[in-house]
Amino acid sequence: MEPGEFAVSILGLGQIGGSLALALKKRGFPGRIGGYDVDPARRDRASFFLDFSASRPEEAIAAADVVVLAAPVSAILETLESVGDRFPDKVFTDVGSTKKAVVELAARFPLLRLVPGHPFAGSELPGEAGWNPDLFAGRPYFLVRTEKTSAADFQLIRDLVRQSGAFPVEVSADEHDRLLALSSHLPLAVSVAFARQMNGRPVQGRKEFVGTGLLSVARLAGGSPEMEADILLSNWKFIREELERFQAELARLAELLESGNREEILRYLRESQRAYWSLVPGKESPERGPEEK
Amino acid sequence: MEPGEFAVSILGLGQIGGSLALALKKRGFPGRIGGYDVDPARRDRASFFLDFSASRPEEAIAAADVVVLAAPVSAILETLESVGDRFPDKVFTDVGSTKKAVVELAARFPLLRLVPGHPFAGSELPGEAGWNPDLFAGRPYFLVRTEKTSAADFQLIRDLVRQSGAFPVEVSADEHDRLLALSSHLPLAVSVAFARQMNGRPVQGRKEFVGTGLLSVARLAGGSPEMEADILLSNWKFIREELERFQAELARLAELLESGNREEILRYLRESQRAYWSLVPGKESPERGPEEK
Repeated sequence: MEPGEFAVSILGLGQIGGSLALALKKRGFPGRIGGYDVDPARRDRASFFLDFSASRPEEAIAAADVVVLAAPVSAILETLESVGDRFPDKVFTDVGSTKKAVVELAARFPLLRLVPGHPFAGSELPGEAGWNPDLFAGRPYFLVRTEKTSAADFQLIRDLVRQSGAFPVEVSADEHDRLLALSSHLPLAVSVAFARQMNGRPVQGRKEFVGTGLLSVARLAGGSPEMEADILLSNWKFIREELERFQAELARLAELLESGNREEILRYLRESQRAYWSLVPGKESPERGPEEK
Repeated sequence: MEPGEFAVSILGLGQIGGSLALALKKRGFPGRIGGYDVDPARRDRASFFLDFSASRPEEAIAAADVVVLAAPVSAILETLESVGDRFPDKVFTDVGSTKKAVVELAARFPLLRLVPGHPFAGSELPGEAGWNPDLFAGRPYFLVRTEKTSAADFQLIRDLVRQSGAFPVEVSADEHDRLLALSSHLPLAVSVAFARQMNGRPVQGRKEFVGTGLLSVARLAGGSPEMEADILLSNWKFIREELERFQAELARLAELLESGNREEILRYLRESQRAYWSLVPGKESPERGPEEK
């Protein structure tokens, strides 16, 4: 099947689903793109860039060859449950932020052709506020090949991913969820806890005390609570381990600061600085600190 | 004294000092701007935008009417100690991230004319990598009026601050340090602890797992360890209180996730989301979440 011959239906036109449609349009995807959203007003707002829209999920599935489930994990699981083995001629993919739960559910349906995915992109702007045709440009897009996945289906979704501007990265569901517990879900937990601490504090009425540091650390708390709850709950086993490590890190830092041992504190901060710059894409530390010269 | 008649010496040409000189130049400051840095190579690199440069701090002070101490807090304290009462015809200001220690030291010298300040601006790029003529544009710049500060000296520094593009905000040292413990120093502590946790973990070799969330929460760890140590140590009393509150927030979140109570978790996340958007300058939540419609 050539891309020009097929239709894609996106179920869920929030930040990810809407942006995916926009990205494919912007990059000249030759097939038809349609969608469904539970919110009729959002469907209306999306109609200017969609080739078709559906008023029920079933209708959106029927109209498409490829179906993208673009919702929080719990809604993806619900949809997969109701889809089951009923559409053996359609290829499904999902965009859930955690992958083990999705893969486990899909394994129960022998005729369900699902290529689980996760675009590693997004902003703190929920819903249509976050629609952005460049959201996926240059970003990783994780794809899982399950035992059931055919080479043709995998390639079809991989090509679709490339056409969004993202680059596909093949992973197992276990590796995905383990690594993201540290690199994505722990920062989310840290951010929401930090943002919540501001509630009722004087800084809320004194915006001149709000700096870029606060906004940077609290930013992830701006996103959709439904999506966040799904991420944190569906991967809690791995996240808990990382959260415990983080609590130990904080306790160690507090102990050092309490001791006032400047040399040890500097060592701690240098380790943090090195770790940060080792993670920034394509960058080294811009200069060595004065202490290393 | 009109601005055109005076010279400003900046002691310390790192991110803040270098950017201040560039900002004043860019915005047409009519006086002369010079500086000193402990690193001769950095002095050389700054010479293209400075009107004069000095090879010793004393020389830089002698050449100026207004002296800006642009260094981490511990270096500011050392300089103030050696300046003492020796330059009663100069007006000093500092850019230290915490203000109580500076104010307390300055109180010991009756002839020292210091207007303590703190530009609430900066990036994670240390030293000249962070030089940016627009660093202060539209940002708050805290100024403290001590018991000794004359109206004329305060006005002089306030005008200088305005000419950097920042807007002056008058605060007491105590209020400054208390509020910033939560809004600036706690995020720094959280960020360095989080970044340090990456050390030696698989994500360091797998950059495709590094997302914008991780970089956002870890970003502050990229800055200068010397400056960070000074901030955390000099305001530890207030920071400790906030860190303890944060640890309690994390423990509460962990407890909720462990319980699996989705409604309670959503309530927690909604409180975080509201707190975040209440702090973003000039913004409201871009849309209510689906649960609030």
